[in-house]
Amino acid sequence: MSQGSGVAEVLGVDLHLELTGAGSRRAVLIRALREAVRSGRLAAGTRLPPYRSLAADLGVARNTVADAYAELVAEGWLTSRQGSGTRVAERVAAPAAEGAPRDTVRALPYDLVQGKPDPAAFPRTAWLASARRALTAAPHDAFGIGDPRGRLELRRELAAYLARVRGVRTVPDRIVVCSGAAHALRLLARILPGTWAVEGYGLPFHRGLLAEAGVRTVPVAVDEEGARVGELRHGPSAVLLTPAHQFPTGGPLHHERRAAAVDWARATGGFVLEDDYDGEFRYDRRPVGALQGLDPDRVAFVGSVSKSLSPTLRIGWMVLPGGLVDGVLAAKGEREPYSSATEQLTLADFLASGGYDRHVRRMRRRHRERRDRLVTVLGERVPQVRVTGIAAGLHAVVELPAGTERAALTAAERHGVAVEGLSGYRHPEDVGGTEKDGLVVGYATPPERLYGGALDALCNALGSALS
Amino acid sequence: MSQGSGVAEVLGVDLHLELTGAGSRRAVLIRALREAVRSGRLAAGTRLPPYRSLAADLGVARNTVADAYAELVAEGWLTSRQGSGTRVAERVAAPAAEGAPRDTVRALPYDLVQGKPDPAAFPRTAWLASARRALTAAPHDAFGIGDPRGRLELRRELAAYLARVRGVRTVPDRIVVCSGAAHALRLLARILPGTWAVEGYGLPFHRGLLAEAGVRTVPVAVDEEGARVGELRHGPSAVLLTPAHQFPTGGPLHHERRAAAVDWARATGGFVLEDDYDGEFRYDRRPVGALQGLDPDRVAFVGSVSKSLSPTLRIGWMVLPGGLVDGVLAAKGEREPYSSATEQLTLADFLASGGYDRHVRRMRRRHRERRDRLVTVLGERVPQVRVTGIAAGLHAVVELPAGTERAALTAAERHGVAVEGLSGYRHPEDVGGTEKDGLVVGYATPPERLYGGALDALCNALGSALS
Repeated sequence: MSQGSGVAEVLGVDLHLELTGAGSRRAVLIRALREAVRSGRLAAGTRLPPYRSLAADLGVARNTVADAYAELVAEGWLTSRQGSGTRVAERVAAPAAEGAPRDTVRALPYDLVQGKPDPAAFPRTAWLASARRALTAAPHDAFGIGDPRGRLELRRELAAYLARVRGVRTVPDRIVVCSGAAHALRLLARILPGTWAVEGYGLPFHRGLLAEAGVRTVPVAVDEEGARVGELRHGPSAVLLTPAHQFPTGGPLHHERRAAAVDWARATGGFVLEDDYDGEFRYDRRPVGALQGLDPDRVAFVGSVSKSLSPTLRIGWMVLPGGLVDGVLAAKGEREPYSSATEQLTLADFLASGGYDRHVRRMRRRHRERRDRLVTVLGERVPQVRVTGIAAGLHAVVELPAGTERAALTAAERHGVAVEGLSGYRHPEDVGGTEKDGLVVGYATPPERLYGGALDALCNALGSALS
Repeated sequence: MSQGSGVAEVLGVDLHLELTGAGSRRAVLIRALREAVRSGRLAAGTRLPPYRSLAADLGVARNTVADAYAELVAEGWLTSRQGSGTRVAERVAAPAAEGAPRDTVRALPYDLVQGKPDPAAFPRTAWLASARRALTAAPHDAFGIGDPRGRLELRRELAAYLARVRGVRTVPDRIVVCSGAAHALRLLARILPGTWAVEGYGLPFHRGLLAEAGVRTVPVAVDEEGARVGELRHGPSAVLLTPAHQFPTGGPLHHERRAAAVDWARATGGFVLEDDYDGEFRYDRRPVGALQGLDPDRVAFVGSVSKSLSPTLRIGWMVLPGGLVDGVLAAKGEREPYSSATEQLTLADFLASGGYDRHVRRMRRRHRERRDRLVTVLGERVPQVRVTGIAAGLHAVVELPAGTERAALTAAERHGVAVEGLSGYRHPEDVGGTEKDGLVVGYATPPERLYGGALDALCNALGSALS
């Protein structure tokens, strides 16, 4: 049989076979099929095309295919059963994975690492209902090449929602949808190169991606009233702040400092980048509107659904000063919307239908209850610690006696608790401001049935470390 | 009233108001509400909280809120109707968009620009059914922080599908999900810096993003048998090829050149990057399996659903040599899966349930019919041209008499046809190989009812340009 190949198109199933090498057609076909099974290319259970169709497609006699199938059934590579056709036998061993399996970090039973909502709380039913409405109502162009700013339907809903709930002042044309806060920072780093001022405490992950993008970060000391923005000088092209709830120490930026941040931007031509990572989750204190509302031309506002719904949706947004929109779109790549339009439309419906508000409010109640339990239990069982930063968010800071953070982390791991130390968030060059030992305790992640156990283990760990 | 703010939480709706400035509580509240409406922060039609709830939340008397609402209704900012509560009046003018509206390219009635499936052909119902099954069956961890390689469920289905249909040899651990081919090239550019050989004809968009990523591209001449890979020398870290269907000239890479590409990679330590952009859409010729199958350790295979389903889903994949997996993941960013996990799971179900095969086959029949019409109509009405590259894909090349491409493009625009010239795809440094005048005609995009008109307009345009 001469070199060639064929594809069977039957029952909506394609099968690609390379028919090469010496021998009769039957022998060549048997070899090709056997090799496809042996190599794992055709997985156990895969249904093969009826031999009539494969024969027609390969241009060989039906009997040739029928013989080949029969031979391979006899050899045990295939199985044939009335009604279910010919399939790859289940007992054929799968090939060993060629790629080295990635190391799996041994998961600890209690996950108190900050920043992640409980995956089990995702509102599947409501989200699916929004998806159904959105996909049914979507215009055809929703399935064409998208606007790199994101779907207009979503940007309209975001403009209205962020105005209503966060006091953001903007128009849909100034909103750019992206895949999350990290994506937003990467894009902003491209158009605001040089040095950024960042809070003395912040996400090492963010500092790392900025360094990778060529941005040098210099710390602004953080104290009880947030970042000391009054100490900012000329030089940085931007200052990255978490005004609503300093991450991770937990206080809101003092209103005089909010004004000072905007003054700095106006005076130097720099920009304030407002990471509103958990602005919707505030509890007993009065809410703090977005800093962006003070000056939409000097403050870029960054948010996402990662804390409110799920980090898995990969939908975030930037509310931009007019002068930054074109630069961000160019950095994003003209043809790269990144976020799926179907999911953007689903989120637009979820916002418009009130599903998002309902979910946020449900989670807010739940987070508040968890925070209260954390504060109560620690107060009773580990009175040496002080819990701070609790007015908002998905985490609290457990302040520890000086010099005990490392021992507390070791004890936590021994007690099955995954949790992070405060010092890991400190900028390597930070001097001044807060410098405390502590744990950053995320209370949102564990499923309901494990939260009590997680608190218990945390108390036991702290008790043993501090005794 | 002292500085402060409040949020009403009623009916699952939040409203953020900043209550600042001099005057009575009533005056301050009226000013805050009026400003929120005037600035467009509260959009026309937005429902306000019942005054009882707003009062409770702001800590003011009910009458104060009731008075403020009444005043604003009297001024025309709000409307109040029994049963539908108090809403922002529809007649309040929206603020002028602050961001400059982006230039809208005047759309031509007939879109024959290559590379896009007809958005109206998206299989909404089947996709939604997969979404419902996938979201219902998903484990909770699907809504947590994802594996940057992508969901295992999807990588398993892709490994099986690509093996069956494209002859790809791999395991799920070597597949990395990304947002599309452009994202894949950006990531590969990060870990394979320096110079890449690219086909003398190819997407300017790809060359541009590689240049932006710091990769210098050098052309390999293309002729009737594809890229002349035998001319490759030491130097490039990679060669980017479209072996199944050279883009855009349309021929498959000759089998001796396929072998030569792999030989080059083995001899130089370079990598072949196989852009399988439309490998599923082949018609009357025998299919060409993936080059990747020749050497999974030297060929990285890139594909996506952008041509087969929709560019809007932003799901693509890389099938990588084992040695490139960790580098690509590091370039991607440890915590950045980019593609939504819910959509990944939906695609996994769509593949497993046979929905993807059915859709591809339906589109293949449709594309083939359109291609046949194109060839027939041009043959009858514009016999001076030759249609090539038609064995596969979503586009054909209409070869024109030398020196007529510019006139043909001008005539096409005049006749309402958006289409691209072949010379725009030529690498600026390309010498040798194909150098023809031509049009790259994408026949997949127009909706069914417009396709006849599009062909008619194209023939009229070519007739007038070549007469």
